[in-house]
Amino acid sequence: MKTDLITLDHGSGGRASHRLIEEVFFAIFDNDFLRQGHDSVCLPTEIGRQLVFTTDSYVVSPLFFPGGDIGDLAVNGTVNDLCMSGADPLYLSVGFILEEGFAISDLKIICQSMAKAAEHAGVKIVTGDTKVVERGQCDGVFINTSGVGFKNPAFCASGDKAQVGDCIIVNGTLGEHGLTILTKRENLEFGSTLVSDTAPLNHLVKKLVDQFPEDIHCMRDATRGGLAAVVNELAAQSKVSIQLEELSIPLKTEVTGASEFLGLDPLSIANEGKFICVCSADKANEILAVMRTMDIGKDAAIIGKVGSERAGLVSIKTALGGTRALAWGGGELLPRIC
Amino acid sequence: MKTDLITLDHGSGGRASHRLIEEVFFAIFDNDFLRQGHDSVCLPTEIGRQLVFTTDSYVVSPLFFPGGDIGDLAVNGTVNDLCMSGADPLYLSVGFILEEGFAISDLKIICQSMAKAAEHAGVKIVTGDTKVVERGQCDGVFINTSGVGFKNPAFCASGDKAQVGDCIIVNGTLGEHGLTILTKRENLEFGSTLVSDTAPLNHLVKKLVDQFPEDIHCMRDATRGGLAAVVNELAAQSKVSIQLEELSIPLKTEVTGASEFLGLDPLSIANEGKFICVCSADKANEILAVMRTMDIGKDAAIIGKVGSERAGLVSIKTALGGTRALAWGGGELLPRIC
Repeated sequence: MKTDLITLDHGSGGRASHRLIEEVFFAIFDNDFLRQGHDSVCLPTEIGRQLVFTTDSYVVSPLFFPGGDIGDLAVNGTVNDLCMSGADPLYLSVGFILEEGFAISDLKIICQSMAKAAEHAGVKIVTGDTKVVERGQCDGVFINTSGVGFKNPAFCASGDKAQVGDCIIVNGTLGEHGLTILTKRENLEFGSTLVSDTAPLNHLVKKLVDQFPEDIHCMRDATRGGLAAVVNELAAQSKVSIQLEELSIPLKTEVTGASEFLGLDPLSIANEGKFICVCSADKANEILAVMRTMDIGKDAAIIGKVGSERAGLVSIKTALGGTRALAWGGGELLPRIC
Repeated sequence: MKTDLITLDHGSGGRASHRLIEEVFFAIFDNDFLRQGHDSVCLPTEIGRQLVFTTDSYVVSPLFFPGGDIGDLAVNGTVNDLCMSGADPLYLSVGFILEEGFAISDLKIICQSMAKAAEHAGVKIVTGDTKVVERGQCDGVFINTSGVGFKNPAFCASGDKAQVGDCIIVNGTLGEHGLTILTKRENLEFGSTLVSDTAPLNHLVKKLVDQFPEDIHCMRDATRGGLAAVVNELAAQSKVSIQLEELSIPLKTEVTGASEFLGLDPLSIANEGKFICVCSADKANEILAVMRTMDIGKDAAIIGKVGSERAGLVSIKTALGGTRALAWGGGELLPRIC
């Protein structure tokens, strides 16, 4: 009976989420567009260029946290989903679900964050909707943003294109967003220096695609489920193995400390301004150098490579020289992270 | 202090909603696209045809009601917003916010309704997102659907194009959706024969636009706020007066009865499959005849005309021969109707 009810793990971005998507949404809404299986979908149009379309609801708790709030998160998250599919993000919609009694002054702060984030990313918020529910029927405010853009014709990366020998690059340090939310929510002292990494990735991605159109094989942002979920998805979709080098993965010391204290793996923790780029080994250093020219890529690093071991296998060479499998994390410890 | 908090009336679709939109969303997100002020927005693209984009969140309570559920409501509502701006609806996104403990069997029923409604309307659900919140932090399920389509180039209706002398047509009987929800929610006996009118309007609209491209001046669906809100919006945007004939407005007897009992004006009650068409008087009878060829237009009627009295004035000639102003209804009695 328990398995017939929605659990927090269904929203984690991990295995339970994927099962729900497969067994309910894909099974019932069945169509090839939906089954592209990316965070945004590429759609044919009568007019040549492909339309990219995405949606995300944001239920983060608390609404305000170091480094951002639900507003910029809702803009950056959708901008990032668009650019990871090769779109130049153009337009966003916003749907608010507000709780009766919510302070309009807080709503204004959230909207100002959204406006600022939209300006930073170069997108416009062009249409919206507002619903209000009775006190106690939602938690302050939930926001949906959907977004559209046209696909950059030079972009040909896709989750199933990782090739044996490719390098895995990440654009910076991992785990900050999820740990910031968690420590703020629980009022944990040691989290006081943690700041969310929420940021738009589209400007960096555009630069990379313009310069390395053929050499970038996969791109995906490491949100819910963190790095672990993304590399497992890419390994499965591309039918390759991936080996990561623990010592190469950029982590701030406060993230390592907080993760250890909480018993969490920072590689399974959500980020909101980080993505994984799988590229030809012979261009990896050039791509890394371009990333590092931008603030959002200044801590970029090559963190592993694609191999030909069992398809879907992800392993990590630990600091002590051993090797362990890196599984998809369960997300039940980290609900409402975005 | 009270005015600084969100109230249920901010979600009513009436004056309070419009003030919130003007003073918070338009003021902060300020751009001309947003200020088009329709339920969906028309956007330029590099490729000639305009992209139409819309979003709506659905928080209806109860989730299941005579004539439909939150699922088909979420599809039809967004399809209707698209076609009212002249789009052929193509693709929808869906964002679910689920409450921990929600029955997956109910989620499946809702998704099946969505799939069926999408098929009926001829659109595809192509991308989605799922969030889960803790027990007590939302009310079962909230759904956002956003939609895109390309504008039918023949369509040139707009809320500011009503002309003196035009006729006002509605495609059928009014008030059923809102009263169905309300009587089901409150378990009122007399509501037992009421059924929601939730339905897609795009097939009828396409037929009208194909046949009367020049003669249809405004179209708008009469959702939250009902007929009263729509005619007030159109009169204000077109800077004209509108006079309705009470005796011509199609109402089912159970709607008249339930409205009287509850002290509600059926003209201010939400519909989910009804729209107002403002057209040249000399084509009104032909347009009416075309509407009546389709099931969704079988009760269509000419209900009033556009005049040159004070801009924005809406009046109604009552059954007794008098005339009264028809104001925007406040929505506080009818929260969570969609």
